[in-house]
Amino acid sequence: MRALRKLEAGPGAVMQQIPIPEIGSREVLVQVRAASVCGTDYHIYSWDPWSAGRVKPPLTVGHELAGEVVAVGKEVTACKVGDYVSAETHIVCNNCPRCHVGEYHLCENTKILGVDTNGVFADYVKVPEQNIWINDKDIPWELQSIQEPLGNAVHTAMNGELTAKSVLVTGCGPIGIMSIPVAKMAGAEVVMAMDVNEYRLDLARRLGADLLINPTKQDPIEVVRAHTRGYGADVVLEMSGNATAIRQSLKAARNGARFSMLGLPSRPLEIDMGADVIMRGITLQGITGRKMWDTWYKVRSLYRAGLVERLKPLITHKLPLEQVDLAMELMQAGQCGKVVLMPELKA
Amino acid sequence: MRALRKLEAGPGAVMQQIPIPEIGSREVLVQVRAASVCGTDYHIYSWDPWSAGRVKPPLTVGHELAGEVVAVGKEVTACKVGDYVSAETHIVCNNCPRCHVGEYHLCENTKILGVDTNGVFADYVKVPEQNIWINDKDIPWELQSIQEPLGNAVHTAMNGELTAKSVLVTGCGPIGIMSIPVAKMAGAEVVMAMDVNEYRLDLARRLGADLLINPTKQDPIEVVRAHTRGYGADVVLEMSGNATAIRQSLKAARNGARFSMLGLPSRPLEIDMGADVIMRGITLQGITGRKMWDTWYKVRSLYRAGLVERLKPLITHKLPLEQVDLAMELMQAGQCGKVVLMPELKA
Amino acid sequence: MRALRKLEAGPGAVMQQIPIPEIGSREVLVQVRAASVCGTDYHIYSWDPWSAGRVKPPLTVGHELAGEVVAVGKEVTACKVGDYVSAETHIVCNNCPRCHVGEYHLCENTKILGVDTNGVFADYVKVPEQNIWINDKDIPWELQSIQEPLGNAVHTAMNGELTAKSVLVTGCGPIGIMSIPVAKMAGAEVVMAMDVNEYRLDLARRLGADLLINPTKQDPIEVVRAHTRGYGADVVLEMSGNATAIRQSLKAARNGARFSMLGLPSRPLEIDMGADVIMRGITLQGITGRKMWDTWYKVRSLYRAGLVERLKPLITHKLPLEQVDLAMELMQAGQCGKVVLMPELKA
Amino acid sequence: MRALRKLEAGPGAVMQQIPIPEIGSREVLVQVRAASVCGTDYHIYSWDPWSAGRVKPPLTVGHELAGEVVAVGKEVTACKVGDYVSAETHIVCNNCPRCHVGEYHLCENTKILGVDTNGVFADYVKVPEQNIWINDKDIPWELQSIQEPLGNAVHTAMNGELTAKSVLVTGCGPIGIMSIPVAKMAGAEVVMAMDVNEYRLDLARRLGADLLINPTKQDPIEVVRAHTRGYGADVVLEMSGNATAIRQSLKAARNGARFSMLGLPSRPLEIDMGADVIMRGITLQGITGRKMWDTWYKVRSLYRAGLVERLKPLITHKLPLEQVDLAMELMQAGQCGKVVLMPELKA
Repeated sequence: MRALRKLEAGPGAVMQQIPIPEIGSREVLVQVRAASVCGTDYHIYSWDPWSAGRVKPPLTVGHELAGEVVAVGKEVTACKVGDYVSAETHIVCNNCPRCHVGEYHLCENTKILGVDTNGVFADYVKVPEQNIWINDKDIPWELQSIQEPLGNAVHTAMNGELTAKSVLVTGCGPIGIMSIPVAKMAGAEVVMAMDVNEYRLDLARRLGADLLINPTKQDPIEVVRAHTRGYGADVVLEMSGNATAIRQSLKAARNGARFSMLGLPSRPLEIDMGADVIMRGITLQGITGRKMWDTWYKVRSLYRAGLVERLKPLITHKLPLEQVDLAMELMQAGQCGKVVLMPELKA
Repeated sequence: MRALRKLEAGPGAVMQQIPIPEIGSREVLVQVRAASVCGTDYHIYSWDPWSAGRVKPPLTVGHELAGEVVAVGKEVTACKVGDYVSAETHIVCNNCPRCHVGEYHLCENTKILGVDTNGVFADYVKVPEQNIWINDKDIPWELQSIQEPLGNAVHTAMNGELTAKSVLVTGCGPIGIMSIPVAKMAGAEVVMAMDVNEYRLDLARRLGADLLINPTKQDPIEVVRAHTRGYGADVVLEMSGNATAIRQSLKAARNGARFSMLGLPSRPLEIDMGADVIMRGITLQGITGRKMWDTWYKVRSLYRAGLVERLKPLITHKLPLEQVDLAMELMQAGQCGKVVLMPELKA
Repeated sequence: MRALRKLEAGPGAVMQQIPIPEIGSREVLVQVRAASVCGTDYHIYSWDPWSAGRVKPPLTVGHELAGEVVAVGKEVTACKVGDYVSAETHIVCNNCPRCHVGEYHLCENTKILGVDTNGVFADYVKVPEQNIWINDKDIPWELQSIQEPLGNAVHTAMNGELTAKSVLVTGCGPIGIMSIPVAKMAGAEVVMAMDVNEYRLDLARRLGADLLINPTKQDPIEVVRAHTRGYGADVVLEMSGNATAIRQSLKAARNGARFSMLGLPSRPLEIDMGADVIMRGITLQGITGRKMWDTWYKVRSLYRAGLVERLKPLITHKLPLEQVDLAMELMQAGQCGKVVLMPELKA
Repeated sequence: MRALRKLEAGPGAVMQQIPIPEIGSREVLVQVRAASVCGTDYHIYSWDPWSAGRVKPPLTVGHELAGEVVAVGKEVTACKVGDYVSAETHIVCNNCPRCHVGEYHLCENTKILGVDTNGVFADYVKVPEQNIWINDKDIPWELQSIQEPLGNAVHTAMNGELTAKSVLVTGCGPIGIMSIPVAKMAGAEVVMAMDVNEYRLDLARRLGADLLINPTKQDPIEVVRAHTRGYGADVVLEMSGNATAIRQSLKAARNGARFSMLGLPSRPLEIDMGADVIMRGITLQGITGRKMWDTWYKVRSLYRAGLVERLKPLITHKLPLEQVDLAMELMQAGQCGKVVLMPELKA
């Protein structure tokens, strides 16, 4: 089968023919139908410092999956051949206190599909039974595939109240953008989207943002306050990881606001914790992964309630598996929404 | 009457004779019986940069109050002459959204007794009716007075679960120390106290800490993990405002921990938000003030359930009103628990 | 001025000329522009057992208010002449523990406008300052007026998660019907509406219900399970007060469901608490009133986010003040949505 | 090995010699060291209507377990030979939505050890790996065994705030009594215990109740109000399942109280839902089982914090396995706390 292989420590990756994986008694073999591209894939491809410290080549890259079950191990009961499935990418230990109390997303010993084990930019991938999620068959493959990052967006956005709230989304990469229709469907009074990239702001608008803020052109604190009767946003969904955006959006949040952080800063950052957080009673929530399986159920319900249609403009590129280099160029340029590799497309 | 007056912008304060305040129709005149000294009082006395930016002399200093009602305005219904009372020190606007939804401690327009209005280091003080809290008469005056900072400790400690949890208190000034018996009474599995000051650690021990950590002598991260089966503390009560302590205690917290911050850092500080907060699903709660009146009810109930006895070792000094300079020296040296001015003591 | 007066213990009420009320220093005089009719008004009009036990004639009836401020007492700061306002109808004591902790809707000593004090079916009404809510001026008067019962619907519906949940509304009187667009706006996966009255079910459909259930024609438990993958509803909003509906909807709820009860049964009712509640981990929430002012803020935000348009079909009748008898007939027949008295309409 | 066998539908059970169970690849064989007796065991022994409808003889009775692992299936990783263990008695399906979101205690397809599968009144029992809980070895066997019902008490008591609250426990059977020291350790202001049985009330006193109420001798509503400043209890832990006690304790609860129900009424019961629940904003929580494994962690932490000592007076009888008939007589008479069968004791 074809697989995009990271063969050594350094930039790049190559498409190779390798054997189809053999599965164990509690594993599932999935034929990949759609594999969307994540910023993490780009980081591994370009070999940034985080990748250099974490990834051990050789490795098949990719983790956002939709496909069809073609074989199951002999003890598998969670799915059957023919099911359309996606994969939760956090492979948890089941034996730490976080796992024991059902907070699997906070497992102390998490491995990640496509980072620590062979991934999904291939014709087939094997997945542990306990990471399999069965999809409704009427959802387009590419929208099945993006449920993993969508789960990040849903987990972040729904980690507190949204209905009747003013919401500021800082950072309009794909996860930030996905959080916009989620907040709108949940009945937010107003959803404000902030980014320095006009391409992304336009996508934010198409996915339902009520107000666009480009902080290179406007003072975001003033704009947010002007649209929240002077008080600031009830909820901030921090998707940028950018130090300046974090500091600005803290000041744009109202007293007592929820400030949910998913975007990963690349280095430590300075915060005026006294004036901007403590004195104002703000709560900063570190968010990681998706709740298993609570977040996936929420995604399923939102899909059924109309989110599938709302998300379609986000899928800007569907490419054959071989065009992974083009996918990575699009990611680097920031001129894309979600890019999806479709193994059945001809190159 | 006597009053400790801040007469001009600069260090120091002087005891003066001034008229007893006149009260309005919704105000209450209280004869001061005990007025405990807060770090904020010391900051105003020594005229630190925060004070220089906030305080407008002339001002009577002090805000932690216990006393007896000696007169009430003609529309006052909340208390009567003869009641023993304390004062909530946040004078709120009643007209912002935070006030409207009952989150008075997050009022956008808060004034503070003894900071923005004349305070309690005096024989008498006038207090708005809506800031009056009536005390049980069998509580010693000095323990009536410390309910305001105790309310900070209770608000911080009880802003999430404590029962059956491992709790790390960073910073053993009076509020940090008060949080220790609160966590113990709430059924914490273990309460660990951290400070660089051995005098304070000894007070922490006397108020019930199970484990003392001096980070100048031990690695606090190792010690906490050793006492939490390797995972870190469930709850951190950050009472120090110290950047190093904050960074250390973040690493000493378990995945998904509650990290409640009351201690005010004196300047912006650098945090590794990605590795220490986001990837680990930690929640940082900025805490300010006390919930009106939910926190005060909790304090009352804890007092009735035995907290009065547990707190007594914290009161290390009772001084006449005139010895305020001595009080400030003790504060500066860090060689005290809670210092209380008692107007009826002879100098 | 004109006022609909309950003059004696017994059925009926009469329109009389009485003096415009005089206001105290903290009261507000409102010229009534719209006064919507509540089931409670009908109970008082027809003098049911509850009314006989509670109401002390003479009394001006009515409590759902929209109008314009025409005079304010000399200490009033919360509004000014010319404001468009509605009234929270619970007049609370401010001195019990529930009031002290901001749970005013649970006040131990509540009086109700139009039940315990003179109400709004009149040209003018006086309202305590602390019960005044200022409206956006672009909202139609009748939609300003219905915010009080809408607040009941919002308080009930939003007393837990709605987004991505399956919701069953039992009882399609006006409050039940109002909860339907609220749940839809909050992103419920599916909203099912149950009533025995086809007129009301049709209104439910027009306000956005995804599924209508008439339990005289269908087995509601089977229908709900068929639309929730066999498990039952995540959330039940019990608006009927009907014993049979309550028992059926308990069985139609999933294990662990939220069962929020606003509808008042007319007498004690029998529940299989063991099988239907305890063994299945269901939570029954008794709901009363509206949170001051948290619920009103939510209503305002939902109005701004589109609820005004969604609710318009509910207003089935606008009548002159004199036609209160017709209003009561419509209520009795159940052939109406919301009936609103408009003092400026000519009879 | 010896086993107490229910051989046919009808009262009684007999001690028999049967083979030691064979274990599967994910099962664990436990040598029983202590097996405490539950009311459910008595119901099965005496063959009440519930048992007649649920239990399929032949069956080994008993489910509260402490013992030593003597063999493990070849895929077992959760424990090893020599571990001291207890068993979660709910054997869940892992495949329903409740299981998928970590609410295993609400599983739609639960089987119960000793009710639906062979139980623990025997020398050995086999337990599914996923139901094994490893104990600290320094806890007495009988206190290891009672963790299952203690988990019910902890789950009920800790399903909301306890610290600084007034708590009424209705029903002083073993689970009710166990909830008393839990509430005390969690910092309840006052714990009131109600039962008609003076033996049980005396046990309640010995385990820490502040106030005893015998409703055959006192008006419980008056007594509770007298000890809660007139308002009623903040929290009711309903452990009796008795209709009269439920109705009385609803009236003894304050507005907005938490009313957590674990006791199973034997038949439907009548409640004045309008006056006693809805108008007063009370929340009734149906409670079942224990959270896996959150409740077990809480029990472990409370044991470490001193609960082991507090519970010792509850263990009133330790009997040899053969004296199960005596155990059942004690249960019937209500003249016991917790009765524990110890297989190693000589008859």
